[in-house]
Amino acid sequence: MAKEIVNREENYSLWYNNLVTKADLAENSAVRGCMVIKPYGYAIWEKMQAQLDKMFKETGHVNAYFPLFIPKSFLSKEAEHVEGFAKECAVVTHHRLMSNPDGPGVVVDPDAKLEEELIVRPTSETIIWNTYKNWIKSYRDLPLLINQWANVVRWEMRTRLFLRTAEFLWQEGHTAHSTKAEAIEETERMVRVYEKFAREFMALPVIVGRKTESERFAGALDTLCIEALMQDGKALQAGTSHFLGQNFAKAFDVQFANKEGKLDYVWATSWGVSTRLMGALIMAHSDNNGLVLPPKLAPIHVVMVPIFKNEEENNKILEKMDQLKRTLEAKGLSVKIDDRDNLRSGFKFAEWELKGVPVRIAMGPRDLEKGTVEIARRDNLTKEFRGFEGIEEYIVSLLDDIQDNIYNKALEFREKSTIEVNDYQTFKQKIEEGGFLLCHWDGTSETEQKIKEETKATIRCIPLDDSGIEEGKCIYSGNPSSRRVIFARAY
Amino acid sequence: MAKEIVNREENYSLWYNNLVTKADLAENSAVRGCMVIKPYGYAIWEKMQAQLDKMFKETGHVNAYFPLFIPKSFLSKEAEHVEGFAKECAVVTHHRLMSNPDGPGVVVDPDAKLEEELIVRPTSETIIWNTYKNWIKSYRDLPLLINQWANVVRWEMRTRLFLRTAEFLWQEGHTAHSTKAEAIEETERMVRVYEKFAREFMALPVIVGRKTESERFAGALDTLCIEALMQDGKALQAGTSHFLGQNFAKAFDVQFANKEGKLDYVWATSWGVSTRLMGALIMAHSDNNGLVLPPKLAPIHVVMVPIFKNEEENNKILEKMDQLKRTLEAKGLSVKIDDRDNLRSGFKFAEWELKGVPVRIAMGPRDLEKGTVEIARRDNLTKEFRGFEGIEEYIVSLLDDIQDNIYNKALEFREKSTIEVNDYQTFKQKIEEGGFLLCHWDGTSETEQKIKEETKATIRCIPLDDSGIEEGKCIYSGNPSSRRVIFARAY
Repeated sequence: MAKEIVNREENYSLWYNNLVTKADLAENSAVRGCMVIKPYGYAIWEKMQAQLDKMFKETGHVNAYFPLFIPKSFLSKEAEHVEGFAKECAVVTHHRLMSNPDGPGVVVDPDAKLEEELIVRPTSETIIWNTYKNWIKSYRDLPLLINQWANVVRWEMRTRLFLRTAEFLWQEGHTAHSTKAEAIEETERMVRVYEKFAREFMALPVIVGRKTESERFAGALDTLCIEALMQDGKALQAGTSHFLGQNFAKAFDVQFANKEGKLDYVWATSWGVSTRLMGALIMAHSDNNGLVLPPKLAPIHVVMVPIFKNEEENNKILEKMDQLKRTLEAKGLSVKIDDRDNLRSGFKFAEWELKGVPVRIAMGPRDLEKGTVEIARRDNLTKEFRGFEGIEEYIVSLLDDIQDNIYNKALEFREKSTIEVNDYQTFKQKIEEGGFLLCHWDGTSETEQKIKEETKATIRCIPLDDSGIEEGKCIYSGNPSSRRVIFARAY
Repeated sequence: MAKEIVNREENYSLWYNNLVTKADLAENSAVRGCMVIKPYGYAIWEKMQAQLDKMFKETGHVNAYFPLFIPKSFLSKEAEHVEGFAKECAVVTHHRLMSNPDGPGVVVDPDAKLEEELIVRPTSETIIWNTYKNWIKSYRDLPLLINQWANVVRWEMRTRLFLRTAEFLWQEGHTAHSTKAEAIEETERMVRVYEKFAREFMALPVIVGRKTESERFAGALDTLCIEALMQDGKALQAGTSHFLGQNFAKAFDVQFANKEGKLDYVWATSWGVSTRLMGALIMAHSDNNGLVLPPKLAPIHVVMVPIFKNEEENNKILEKMDQLKRTLEAKGLSVKIDDRDNLRSGFKFAEWELKGVPVRIAMGPRDLEKGTVEIARRDNLTKEFRGFEGIEEYIVSLLDDIQDNIYNKALEFREKSTIEVNDYQTFKQKIEEGGFLLCHWDGTSETEQKIKEETKATIRCIPLDDSGIEEGKCIYSGNPSSRRVIFARAY
């Protein structure tokens, strides 16, 4: 093997960390809780960004950029928001360093204290609504459909690469509407965009649902989300879309003249996904050989490894590979020829498996003679020989097959891991095994809190679809319930 | 007029500020020195980013992401670097807020003081070279050709939208090489990429040159740059590419085993352009009617304005426009139909002129009857009528003409404003008029400093090409000089 990774069954958490670091996706930096996203990891994130950005623009959104810093007083303006976000954050208090008068290096210049501290944005509702105040006068200025790609900082105590880091990259949409109905429609539209992106690009089946009151975004009236199931049976919240009502408009006094000329507060939404999606992608599909990347997000679709004994053979093989590479590239694929001369092909095979490249093509002197290549699929590790004839079309359709297969495998796993549970004893057993538990719940925060304390399970969401709508009794209190909700332990 | 902007001749600085704010490019935020980049401005920046990113990738670079924060001690590791960057910067000292015990709102939690302060990156050499240390062991790991798109913060006292802001967006390339020659080659390659981008996309003729020692990047052995001339005769440094020698490798102890197995320090470059390019783009081409955008960076290529008296006419015109829009879009153009019913067409014309849309198409009932449209060019404000026949091809070629014309106009202006000056008396007169002054200089920092103090002019660069190579005498000291350099007042 190129680089050893621990088995998933042995130590899931270490397996994940091995994947991230050994496949060159990311690593911890010298700054506590902040990661370095390495080129191979960043290339996947760029593909995610490009596709999401396209989908946002297709739904009428435009990008803009708002300041990194938020004046401390802004955070306090929306009462619930400050509770959720003003606690663990990076606080800028000074604007200058000076040479250390007592020794080498530099120290903070005490004369350069800011009048008001600045917070590195943990999310941008406050600074954005303070800006929107000047942009919105009339219903003709609405809707405002704006997205921002940015870095944000939340001072997390326990961090894990991609899943929970002090600094992370994300997009945050912030929209302003003249009616409640339109804002609610937008909230739903964007959670559906996330669902489609997860399904079609990440090959990730997700449940679209509503958060309970206690799990809502700080300052929101309603939080919709997509929830995914990881291979260890834990849930991962992969994206959220919030209906903010008029809370931020009231906090920042953003009113507009409606068609009747009367002043009214603006209705708001916000929605976001982050580099956390990278964690979801890795944990949902990978195996003990390494990453398994869905072709639609793979930085390299096809890797070619020449197998040879002497330079003359090598040149002939490389020539043929180069030819094939060009025809595949003409079909929009990203192809790499691994012609490193200091590594054995077995080492290379293992390395590209670790990196999750969907298709590997190997070619030796006998293949060249016979006009064949060996094609290996990363998703199911099968191999086959094929002639040169029509190979381009075959690989294009193979990549589609792989994309579908990865999705279907994840869907099958989720379906197998989703069960109805009707009593608390069984719940306590089953939650240890992981998975989505569909249970009746009495709708109270008290019950939710008790279950969380006793089992570490939370209500991931109340599905938006009709599944689970039926009369029943709460697994904890026995009180009546009109639908099942999804419980799980979560990242 | 839609929105009044002051005449450039009357108040150049206010004219610039009017353009930025009234054309909806950017505005000041509630945070001192930080701007909000509005959607229309951000759309231009996105086009710049996309093209630069493509050019970086074509020259073998990949993207990655490094932390926003830099430990204070890192800045001190490279002696010159700390002088240049550790002074005015945003310093994070705490990681938590708490409810104010003495009243409403939140205050900094004194218990949450960081052991070591973190600096919001003013540039990332230090954190990146601290990371590269672990990535580079052997010559086989080289070159590392990495770029980062990021926000940076420099606590500027006097700020101007796009030109000088506390937070700005930029890209910073950081490359590592095994030989000095290769690093120097990279430094030159990237300044040429910037030159090409400025010329072909921004329609901006730039001089490629070398900075004098006193104007070099803090920590560099050599700084190459592109210098542009604005319409008020002031120079604007639009991009820089630095040969860093082994300074950062030594500061962070980054050594590699070369082919002979001996340890050596790695050679480095860094290079960057920022949202400052937006300022250059605006100031180089715009006029008293507003922005003039080169088609290759214009978010909207063609705007269509219907002119009508009743709804029936309007519907027919809009139908025809919609048809034309689709055919233009099929040719890759971005087209907007301005069908707002509450504004007069004169108002719309002025607004789209202000926003710099390269081509405006107007169509009234008589045009529809005759099968013609009125086509107005933004660059030279000329108008013409044309029949529908072949109009798509015509507009595509018209946009190329406009791109060329904007470039040629800027080039002509620069050539007209570039003069040879041979004595200090004339220099002092001519510098008041603006422009690039080609002068002999004795090569000393003392002379450079004196001229700067007395005239506010700096040496913008020593051109890389052969122009100005001749024996002469320094305009200030009279000492011998072997070539002319470019003096100007600068942004």
